Amino acid sequence: MKQLDSITPRDVDFARWYTDVVTRTGLANYSTVKGCMIMPPYGNELWENMRAELDARIKKVGAKNVTLPLLIPESMLQREKDHIDGFAPEVLWITHSGEEKLAERLCLRPTSEVLFCEYFKNTIQSYRDLPMKLNQWANIFRAEKNTRPFLRTTEFFWQEGHTLHETEAEARKMTMQIQNLYNDYLRDFLALPLVEGRKTESEKFAGAVETYTREVMMYDGQALQTGTSHYLGTGFAKAFGITYQNREGREALPHYTSWGITTRMIGALVMVHGDDRGLVLPPHVAPIQAAIIPIMMHKQGILDAAKKLEKSIAKVVRTHVDASDNTPGWKYSEWEMRGVPVRIEYGPRDIENGTCVVVRRDTGEKAVVAVTNLKKELPKILQTIHDSMYSKALARQESMTYDARTLDEITEIAKTKPGFIRAPWCGCAKAEKLLKEKFATTSRCIVDEFKQNTDIKCAISGEPAKYMVIWGKAY
Amino acid sequence: MKQLDSITPRDVDFARWYTDVVTRTGLANYSTVKGCMIMPPYGNELWENMRAELDARIKKVGAKNVTLPLLIPESMLQREKDHIDGFAPEVLWITHSGEEKLAERLCLRPTSEVLFCEYFKNTIQSYRDLPMKLNQWANIFRAEKNTRPFLRTTEFFWQEGHTLHETEAEARKMTMQIQNLYNDYLRDFLALPLVEGRKTESEKFAGAVETYTREVMMYDGQALQTGTSHYLGTGFAKAFGITYQNREGREALPHYTSWGITTRMIGALVMVHGDDRGLVLPPHVAPIQAAIIPIMMHKQGILDAAKKLEKSIAKVVRTHVDASDNTPGWKYSEWEMRGVPVRIEYGPRDIENGTCVVVRRDTGEKAVVAVTNLKKELPKILQTIHDSMYSKALARQESMTYDARTLDEITEIAKTKPGFIRAPWCGCAKAEKLLKEKFATTSRCIVDEFKQNTDIKCAISGEPAKYMVIWGKAY
Repeated sequence: MKQLDSITPRDVDFARWYTDVVTRTGLANYSTVKGCMIMPPYGNELWENMRAELDARIKKVGAKNVTLPLLIPESMLQREKDHIDGFAPEVLWITHSGEEKLAERLCLRPTSEVLFCEYFKNTIQSYRDLPMKLNQWANIFRAEKNTRPFLRTTEFFWQEGHTLHETEAEARKMTMQIQNLYNDYLRDFLALPLVEGRKTESEKFAGAVETYTREVMMYDGQALQTGTSHYLGTGFAKAFGITYQNREGREALPHYTSWGITTRMIGALVMVHGDDRGLVLPPHVAPIQAAIIPIMMHKQGILDAAKKLEKSIAKVVRTHVDASDNTPGWKYSEWEMRGVPVRIEYGPRDIENGTCVVVRRDTGEKAVVAVTNLKKELPKILQTIHDSMYSKALARQESMTYDARTLDEITEIAKTKPGFIRAPWCGCAKAEKLLKEKFATTSRCIVDEFKQNTDIKCAISGEPAKYMVIWGKAY
Repeated sequence: MKQLDSITPRDVDFARWYTDVVTRTGLANYSTVKGCMIMPPYGNELWENMRAELDARIKKVGAKNVTLPLLIPESMLQREKDHIDGFAPEVLWITHSGEEKLAERLCLRPTSEVLFCEYFKNTIQSYRDLPMKLNQWANIFRAEKNTRPFLRTTEFFWQEGHTLHETEAEARKMTMQIQNLYNDYLRDFLALPLVEGRKTESEKFAGAVETYTREVMMYDGQALQTGTSHYLGTGFAKAFGITYQNREGREALPHYTSWGITTRMIGALVMVHGDDRGLVLPPHVAPIQAAIIPIMMHKQGILDAAKKLEKSIAKVVRTHVDASDNTPGWKYSEWEMRGVPVRIEYGPRDIENGTCVVVRRDTGEKAVVAVTNLKKELPKILQTIHDSMYSKALARQESMTYDARTLDEITEIAKTKPGFIRAPWCGCAKAEKLLKEKFATTSRCIVDEFKQNTDIKCAISGEPAKYMVIWGKAY
């Protein structure tokens, strides 16, 4: 970073604000390779922190990491029809090795169900092998024309879980367990509020019986789908011939779940928490949690004192002393832009008093903290910031979620108010299509299901409503 | 693993022994995707442990992780001529996206110098930005016809460091710093002895001024190149137009180093330490360091006691209680085959005596250890095993390294004794070629350079020798 470039204000041009923030803070960059992004050190470290925590949570539910190939032969991809139909247009094809033409084309995995099926087929024999819970951290390829770092890129990174179970009930339970794991992770680690539920038929994953999602509302009121969990039934098992001997000694088809969450999450972090000065990173995941800015650094002993301070807190927070030649004012702006949750100002007077000034990125609040208490206080301050970031984002999401009971109400909201619309639905694809065509508004998720007959009518068709749905524009 | 399949003895068929061990212990499997391997949970966890330690060591020398694209446009790859010439035959080409033909072909990275060059070009401005030290963990693709898990696969995994420096001296120092880092890592973490030094001209990396390597001798006497560190000079910078303003205010070309170590290392672990009963894993990296085998598990309280024992040592070693239905004898064989450094036998009599039996995988030695001392003793036992594995492998390597002074001596050794040949060389490519054609023996590395004139003659040509070289057959 050579200079503190100005960032386009959010309300002037949100898309440009996003690109400014992401590229100028070192989270991501466009590469000269079409559709592919670069993650420089800062963005890469953020992703490493996100990965480490999510990996630990996934391991806790008993899934084990594996590595499967990136390449899929064409015939293998075509084995499950709905699945290939869903992905075919986005697939990148390898046709040559050196000068030689390949006998069969290979594609870059757009997801790995078919590879896991091959693995399962060769591994599973009896019910004793079930449940089998696997996970993979991988790069994934879906050709995209209009790309934006993290949100939509031809190469992206994710975690993909694949599990097999004896019964439908058990597989569905797994699907929900992961759904809850993702919810908790977003809320407790990334300070992201969300709405969550089942996808409608038209928005499901290609090949899934049921898809669960959570949708996070960005600053501009649009939804970002962040993590999905699928119950895939026995379709893949049938297509790939995966069978096992069940408890009764008969051949049976296992029930499949898959679930994934991607580098898109980073886009959500940026667009939910950021402000006109740049990034605001949730404390638990920030690469640097506390930046120490020495004041009057040219004076003897100041830098040493700052480094001593750094050492004293390094066990409880990720910290960094900014010893560059820039002025303190410049450094404040830079670390603000890069979203560091707190900066610690530390100069001659502070050293004399045995205190330092702790400034919150999210609110700008300043507190004078005794150096001897800093190690104890910082984790509390960081948790307070986390809680406050979550509450602020949740309040915004709630204030931008509007109830509608009729098509007129939906129209009024869709035309004037960015955000989510909560409206009952009859379950008919025609009604869903109408909203999509009229307002580019799609069903984000089903948040409630009316089991008994009610008087509630579908806000679109006027027919009896079966579901309460969150509708919105999606990234 | 369904049954303890027998493993082909090493001296009967070493290649089959290797495949048996690797596939039956769950380190790797062939996939139905030509040339690509699968890493099941056990192999994947081993690799995760290897990565974590190496990543920490690399971060300690100041390198930061980044993520660059997997795809390289054809025109970009062709920018550095020596480089493309070295890789062209092995490159996989993408020609289509969905149904559409691409305007320019994309290849899967066979290494990432050109991508890093693009990144550097857009990032480096002045000498203040140097040195810039970056690292990437990535999947890499080089089309291979005859593949073996870990040793030679079309997709493999590595860490690749790329650094820029102001001066040649500094870049060469970095090259050596990494050379030493890899040496220490292999010896201290993986218990692998090695010979190390510079590569001859014909064995250098495509585009490098100098390549340093370390070669590890496998059980069969063949060499496995394990990690290379290159000084690339300013050729890439020139080809890609990477310049910076130097301390004198003039435009200058930075000096480039790159270095990498791959999943091949796992092959080295297997082929150096393994025996006819299977894997012998070095303690620091083993996914399970101590397997607890309950004896007379059907008796009340035994399994609970084993779990209590597990809990008491879980903070100091990676451990696992084998509570499966198999007999203790079966379990002994299974954990031996999987190379777990120690097994702990724990039954009614042990519980009564407050002791347990600790059995070393590498030597079969048994020791009775008081349960109260186990937590303190286990790390010592594991270090003893590490040291002993290293010494054993080193002794074997030394006993299979033969000195030769004449072509007759080389011929005699090459024809009768597997292992390394240490022989002086004049530096002439013709002499090198002769050995390659006659015995498939290549220069592995230059271990000494004769700065002054000596009486020593090249063992091949009879001309005055310039170098002492380790020659051998290579994987």
